Formats: sequence, C-alpha cells, structure tokens
Amino acid sequence: MERRKFLKGAALGGAAAAAGGLAAPAVAQARKTMTIVSTWPRDFPGLGISAQRLAQRITDLSEGRIVTEYFAAGERVGAFDSFDEVASGNAQAYIGADYYWKGKHPALAYFTAVPFGMTYTEHTAWMKYAGGNELMDKVKGEFGLKGLLAGNTGCQMGGWFNKEIETADDLKGLKMRIPGLGGDVMAKLGASPVSLPGGQIYENLVSGAIEATEWVGPYNDYFMKFYEAAKYYYYPGMHEPGAALSLTMNASWWGSLTDWERQVITAAAYEEHANSMDEVNALNGEYLSKMINENGVVLKEFSDEIYESFAEAAAEVFEETRAHSELTREVDDSFQKALREIGAWMKISDVAYSQKRNRALGI
Amino acid sequence: MERRKFLKGAALGGAAAAAGGLAAPAVAQARKTMTIVSTWPRDFPGLGISAQRLAQRITDLSEGRIVTEYFAAGERVGAFDSFDEVASGNAQAYIGADYYWKGKHPALAYFTAVPFGMTYTEHTAWMKYAGGNELMDKVKGEFGLKGLLAGNTGCQMGGWFNKEIETADDLKGLKMRIPGLGGDVMAKLGASPVSLPGGQIYENLVSGAIEATEWVGPYNDYFMKFYEAAKYYYYPGMHEPGAALSLTMNASWWGSLTDWERQVITAAAYEEHANSMDEVNALNGEYLSKMINENGVVLKEFSDEIYESFAEAAAEVFEETRAHSELTREVDDSFQKALREIGAWMKISDVAYSQKRNRALGI
Repeated sequence: MERRKFLKGAALGGAAAAAGGLAAPAVAQARKTMTIVSTWPRDFPGLGISAQRLAQRITDLSEGRIVTEYFAAGERVGAFDSFDEVASGNAQAYIGADYYWKGKHPALAYFTAVPFGMTYTEHTAWMKYAGGNELMDKVKGEFGLKGLLAGNTGCQMGGWFNKEIETADDLKGLKMRIPGLGGDVMAKLGASPVSLPGGQIYENLVSGAIEATEWVGPYNDYFMKFYEAAKYYYYPGMHEPGAALSLTMNASWWGSLTDWERQVITAAAYEEHANSMDEVNALNGEYLSKMINENGVVLKEFSDEIYESFAEAAAEVFEETRAHSELTREVDDSFQKALREIGAWMKISDVAYSQKRNRALGI
Repeated sequence: MERRKFLKGAALGGAAAAAGGLAAPAVAQARKTMTIVSTWPRDFPGLGISAQRLAQRITDLSEGRIVTEYFAAGERVGAFDSFDEVASGNAQAYIGADYYWKGKHPALAYFTAVPFGMTYTEHTAWMKYAGGNELMDKVKGEFGLKGLLAGNTGCQMGGWFNKEIETADDLKGLKMRIPGLGGDVMAKLGASPVSLPGGQIYENLVSGAIEATEWVGPYNDYFMKFYEAAKYYYYPGMHEPGAALSLTMNASWWGSLTDWERQVITAAAYEEHANSMDEVNALNGEYLSKMINENGVVLKEFSDEIYESFAEAAAEVFEETRAHSELTREVDDSFQKALREIGAWMKISDVAYSQKRNRALGI
C-alpha cells in the first residue's frame, strides 16, 4: 500500500515538476532535485495550495536549477512521517506545522504556536529579528534539520461548540478535538481533549463522539461543514494565535547548496510566509459572513473570565514544558521576553489604533 | 552640482554591484542594469537600510544578471524627483513612499497610507488579494509606471507635542509638521500643518517655528531627538496606520524583462516588504522604553473623543479627494470596502486576541 502511494505520488510530483517552465539558458546547467513532502492533503484550500505554490516557486525562481518534486500527505509518506523522512535524508524537505512533532522535542511547538503566544506579526518579528531563528536552528539541528518560516494561518478561531460556553465550568467533561498544548490547557480545565486528523473530525462531530472541535479560521473551516453539528463559533482562540508553518530541510543537503541556491529558497519561503497570511486575511471576513448568513452559524466571544482560566492553565502547561531540557527553557525564555516586549509595542500601535478606528467608524 | 552628485552616486552604485557575489556560471550570460533612485538618505536607519538591502537582494537573487545601481536621496536626483526620473526612463526604478506624489494623482496616497486607513496586515491583504494591486497598476499605468509593495513602517505614532492634547480644542492654531492627507485632517480641526523634509524638522522644533511633529515610530524617531523640544509622545497615529513603500519601475523596462527576471524582482520586493516590517516591530518596543527611561519622554494616548473629531475631519478629506476623478473614486471604494471587511475579521482575531491576552498576562 505504501509503495502504491509512493508510485502515485511520484507520478504527480513528476507532472508538477515538468510544469515548472524551464527557461532555455538554464537547461545546460547543473540541476538538483528537491523532494518535498507535506503534512497537507493535495489541493487543500489555504494550507495545501500554499505549500504547492511554494514548491513551484522554488523551481521557477531557480530557473529550473532546483527541481522540486512535491508530495502531498499520503502520496509518499503519511503526514506525521514527514519529519523522519527528511531527517533520514530520504527527502530533502518538508512543509508543515512543526508542533506535530513536539513529542520529539517540546520546544518545536514554539516555532508553530503555543497557547497565549504571539500573533503572526509578533511571531514573525521574533523569529527573524529577535532570536527565534537562531533557536530554531539549535532545536532542529539536534535532528539534522534546518528550517525556514514558510506560512502562517493567522489567529485561529476558538472552535465549534454544540452548546454555549458561558463559564469555565461548561468545559468540564467536554469531548473536544484540540491537539497540542492547547489540548493540555483544556484538559487542566476538565475537558477531554482528543487529537484527530482533519479528515476524521466531521464524522466524529456528527456522530456525537466529540462535542466540539477547533480547526483554523472561517475560510478553512467553511469547507469542513462543522456548523451542521455545532453552530456556536467562538473567538478568539487562545490555543493558536498565529500558527507558523515551515519549510524544513535536511541540514546536510542544505549545507551542500551554493549560497545562491540558499538565497533562492529563503526568498521563496519568506515570500510565501507572507502570501499565505495575506490570502486568508483577505478571505476570512467573507467566509465568516457567508456562514453566519447562509448556514445559521452563531458567532460568540469568549468571556474575559474564561480567558483568565485559560491563562492560569497555560502557565501550568508552560512549567511542565520547561522541565524537559535546558534548551526548552532557553526557547521559552526568549519567546516569553519577545511576547512581552513586542506585544507591548503592538498594544499601543496596531491594537490601540484598530480599537479606536473601529469605534469611530462603527466597524 | 547635479553632475558631481551623479558621478559620486555612480561610483557608490558600482561598488555595491561589485559586492554582489556573482557566481561563475552567470558571468557569461546577458546582464541588465537596473538603476534605482530612492527617497531615503544613505544608511538611514530603518527605511534607508531596507531600500539598500532590497537593491542588493535583486542583484544577488538574479545571480548578477540584474545589476542594481542604488542612489540614495540626493545622490542622483532629489528625493521628490524620483517619480519623474523613473517615469521618464532616466532610471529604471525608485524605492519610496508613493504619497509624496499625491499632487500628481491623489489615488497614489491609498497605496502608501491614508488617515483612518488599514494597518500593515490589512493593507497587504488588500493589495495582494483583494484588488489593490490591480488598482495600483491602473493609477501608475497612467504615468508609465509599474509598482510592487516593498516595505512598510507599521502603525505610526501620533507625534511629538510640547503640551498635552486633551481635547480637539488643543489642536487649534497648533503649528505641526504633518504632511499629506493627515495634515489636511489636522487643518480641518484648526491646526496649521506644515510639510518639512526629515532633515529640517529638528531645527524647526527647537527654534519654536513648529510646536509639534510626527515622524514614524520609536525606532526611527529615536535618532531624531525630537524629545529635546517636545516630550509628549502620543499614540496611536490616525494619519498613517501602516505606511507601505514601493519598488516602482518604468513600465516599458518592466515589460522588456523575461518572466524569470520579473519573478526575481517580485520575490525580492515581497520578501523585503515583510522584512522591513518585522525588523521595526522587533525594535520599536526597546527604543520606546529607552526614550521613556533615559530621555524623559512621556507616553500619552489620544482620547476617544479626539479620535471621533479626527474621524469626522477625515470623512470630509475623503469626499474632497474622491472629487478628483472616476479612478480615484474606484480606488477609494475598493479601499473602504476592504477596510471594513478585512478590518471586521482582524477585530475578532488578532485584535480581540491581543486585548484578552494582554489583560490576562498584564501586558
């Protein structure tokens, strides 16, 4: 079965590479193959499209001298096997969410998203200009990997619930699909978090096996039809305030590249990091309105009291996470410092401005 | 004098190009020269450094096949002559703030920043994925130009004042350096806005010729030492909630490029668009603390009432701006629609999350 998937994936990847528009002058030059595996299904709205666009862009920007072969989840290996596939050198890179592998090292979660963490704007500033990238190199270096920011979902919605969540007591016993550290926070408040891949959430929600789920935001969630079983759509999510995705390469392969090849891959990754965010920001408002108007979705805001309960639980989760290792404490220290410093600037700039503008214009 | 400056600039540009690390395989291929003029002084913190980094990146990413020659403000032409220099074909591109040329077409202001407009995140989403870029092509096309986003200052501070601004009445008769549509808003509230280039603001503030000024944000403002004459530093600025910069090219030259050359320039511009924002977001908090602790700066927030006065004045300014032409109305319509749709999404995502997180964590 795995081999059949591989052959199918290879054929698709080959077709994608052939479509890469090789300009004549480059054909005679040395080419390198870059096999990319991904944690997203093929043509998945938002995340999958973004990953495919990045793979194509690397071929194009390198004028065909780096030929990417892209395999969506399951086409070569399963989504969660992407990390090992690249660490072992079987593939050159993966595109995905690093927190899927927090079991390998809990510090990986900080490079995607942690509860009560940073927004897209804050997180990107930390990664590029306040020490985040250097720490990611340290953590991924332990596995023979080298990562680059390559996408972001933005601040996620709090999730879909089949009843109103008025107080933290309403979370007690709640069976909710929410993976990662966000799930750990929910567990501390008495909920029963479960982890399910995207393709199995809908059936579990409809059957009643789970009563609530989070996914991403209006544009991505629209296609999942969760509103058929859970109409209360809560904001804002505390669990993933801006989930960053990465293009992560085998470090030996990365080291074998020329300076120019590394520049091309970095430019493509950073361009897509921003494009993926800009695209969903342009679409989320429209899809939220559509679900409210056409599908009976009820938009609700978490209360400040519940947020305080979330924050207390999150502080415990961080303490447990820090216990893992010296390196995890170093990452957490850097992250928490940046969160407070950059967050304090955003508070008096974008956030304060948006509040006053929205009030004055009735937004 | 102009010729001497040109020769000096050419020598500098040549040195920059030579440092561009040309890889051997590319040397034999056709090269194109891309002369870039800029509205920023050489090595100017933030804006100037960002523009120089972009020029170098285009040379590097193209493997030396597009050789950029960068001229800072005054090295080839004055800052405000950059537009004509590129429209005429004397240079291939400028890097700068398009609203400097709103006298040529008022719609140009929307591609930089307008009062009560969009933040960096919102504006970039509009430009790339909600019609902004297509409208910029229309407006710049009238002048034989083609633009790409290539930087952003983020939400600017409201400015430096030598007295507290408690009500809109405190603005009456105030001599303030604030250019563009933001200045028009201030004028409607009884202030006397003046436009001064960056290098002349400090002396006018110290001499008392002006009583207030805006510039950018903490990192950029720090180097201007305005706090020596005006210690009240107000936030948030309504006049430039996220000033976008552009790399704008002569359209005929852009049309003469290969697809690959256009992709390289686009990737470099979009990469720098994000990098410039991420860099100042990482620095602003630190420089604000420094000025408060070391220079006696008093941080103050504009009241909601003043914001309402600003908003009413801004509405009048937009009406006058729209009167210019059909195209300006088309741009304003698209801008205002995106502001409300994308703004409504940001309100329940990044903004709501930041408020609740900051409250819970004491930020």
